[in-house]
Amino acid sequence: MRHFWRLDARPKGHDYAASLTLVSEEISPPAEGEVLVEAHYLSMDPGVRVWMTAREDGYSPAIPLGTPMVGQFLGRVLESAHPGFSAGDLVRGFGHWATHSTVDPVAAGLTRLDEDVADIRDHFGVLGLNGWTALCGLVDVLGIKSGETVLVSAAAGATGSVACQIAKGRGCRVIGIAGSDAKCAWLTGKLGIDAAINYKNQNVAAELERLGGGIDAYFENVGGDLLDAVLPNMALYGRIGICGLIAGYTSDTGLPGPVRFDQILMKRLTIKGIFLPDFIAEGRDYYPELRAMYDAGKLAGDFDETVGIENVLKAFTRLMTGRNTGKVLVKIRDFSSR
Amino acid sequence: MRHFWRLDARPKGHDYAASLTLVSEEISPPAEGEVLVEAHYLSMDPGVRVWMTAREDGYSPAIPLGTPMVGQFLGRVLESAHPGFSAGDLVRGFGHWATHSTVDPVAAGLTRLDEDVADIRDHFGVLGLNGWTALCGLVDVLGIKSGETVLVSAAAGATGSVACQIAKGRGCRVIGIAGSDAKCAWLTGKLGIDAAINYKNQNVAAELERLGGGIDAYFENVGGDLLDAVLPNMALYGRIGICGLIAGYTSDTGLPGPVRFDQILMKRLTIKGIFLPDFIAEGRDYYPELRAMYDAGKLAGDFDETVGIENVLKAFTRLMTGRNTGKVLVKIRDFSSR
Repeated sequence: MRHFWRLDARPKGHDYAASLTLVSEEISPPAEGEVLVEAHYLSMDPGVRVWMTAREDGYSPAIPLGTPMVGQFLGRVLESAHPGFSAGDLVRGFGHWATHSTVDPVAAGLTRLDEDVADIRDHFGVLGLNGWTALCGLVDVLGIKSGETVLVSAAAGATGSVACQIAKGRGCRVIGIAGSDAKCAWLTGKLGIDAAINYKNQNVAAELERLGGGIDAYFENVGGDLLDAVLPNMALYGRIGICGLIAGYTSDTGLPGPVRFDQILMKRLTIKGIFLPDFIAEGRDYYPELRAMYDAGKLAGDFDETVGIENVLKAFTRLMTGRNTGKVLVKIRDFSSR
Repeated sequence: MRHFWRLDARPKGHDYAASLTLVSEEISPPAEGEVLVEAHYLSMDPGVRVWMTAREDGYSPAIPLGTPMVGQFLGRVLESAHPGFSAGDLVRGFGHWATHSTVDPVAAGLTRLDEDVADIRDHFGVLGLNGWTALCGLVDVLGIKSGETVLVSAAAGATGSVACQIAKGRGCRVIGIAGSDAKCAWLTGKLGIDAAINYKNQNVAAELERLGGGIDAYFENVGGDLLDAVLPNMALYGRIGICGLIAGYTSDTGLPGPVRFDQILMKRLTIKGIFLPDFIAEGRDYYPELRAMYDAGKLAGDFDETVGIENVLKAFTRLMTGRNTGKVLVKIRDFSSR
């Protein structure tokens, strides 16, 4: 049997239990060209929240009601009807919030994974799409340079925490914004960034002003009020990369842009979207650089792990309400190397 | 005697009469290094509205209360104590809303003007900072290419109308947004652009969707609701150049950014400020290209002229409330060639 979460209604806020149902069905063998994967882990990613709504303008269409909820899996191929994959391969891709996903390898972005990593879960975090997105955003979109001041929001999150380490590794002064004193201590302690601001009990605009220097590059994951606090503290000619706008993902109508939008003109800022698939489509491969940092011990992740397919909504809620430090994932079954 | 407008209070909305006073004083001879200019024309520019407020974050500091209101003049040097200028020179620069301005040539950006133009007023519009800004924004900031769809807001304004003609001349499909049917008719008729939308009686978002094709480059002069109507109609990887945000200039607190700010991410847009002085500082000279278009009859201006220093506030109000087509200026005294 395969167990999966089905999207039955458009959720309001974070009431996911009212909209998603855990369903069981017989597993069919993969059709010609398809691959059946048994999941060890599921990745919880904020972006999928946008696809739950009926907004027409996400970068992917809304998930049709009555169909499986979409998300990333990490698991082993159980059965392959595609020449590029064999039973037993360890793979990552886009499938369902499910114990098993049957996918078209191209549509799923199915990727065979190295098993010689210290922790297989890192293929979801620092070595996975979070790591790829952080490196893509900092280097190919924001073009950070040594000596610059780089600000990262949701800095203790899966993508933000990698962005902090990459920027630090490239000689930047790095400031992180996060939502608890514990996260801030983790950022300045374990990750070694220069300063961290707890937006829940500190005035972000005032703290940025106190830290001084002007922000050359801002890696934005949040939007909303936070962006407004940052804008007047940008350096002249500063760059802002919009990787995510999680503050608005539960809204059906969109989140108002920053009140200080005029700063784009006044400070001659450049604002761009960070969208990894565009760079992958151009053939960019971020794995070698991330892997080299990882092997050198310069890319640390942390995990917020929940166990069991039945607890997926709990894990997703932790992510969306910012209770995690590091990568949020759900363990579906124990991993064992071949 | 010199007559000038003094800023005595921070205006509310468009009630300029309550904040500005026409004052007369004796003319002093210019100090060493200065130049005394007698104005023929004053230019009315939306940007100066920002300097009237006490907001600290304009690109120039607020004009101190009790001092002359700042603006561009076009006139003749009456007396020069600077080796680079002589009495009789026709010049343009930043001085005061005044019959006479005594200026430091560098601070004022004082520029000697050709007199061999069909209409001397064109040195304020199509050949002046409006023309320079339009060319800078389209070419050096937005990087427009032949075949692209270019959208211009405040298209019948002094800068917008030049932007329309430059984009058309470079082989783009050009759509303009303006505030009356007469302006729209002028844009598609005299200026020959492809389509014009009257935002006062048409639904801009629906019209843009009907015209189709996606907007590759948007030359933005307005902001506010208009930007929200445009964002979902941008092409993937579209560029937006923020030249002005006139919708917010009367606000002391700033105008909220677009609700559809998420489109920056979803459509992977690039948004940048257009700020001409940066490019002038780098040595860019836009005059030769503008002059060549002008001499070839491919750069038409229109004027909204008011006569008399005592009527400056009327002219400025016309500009700020969008009652003009083309360049708004005030004639201070008749021009005669030397």
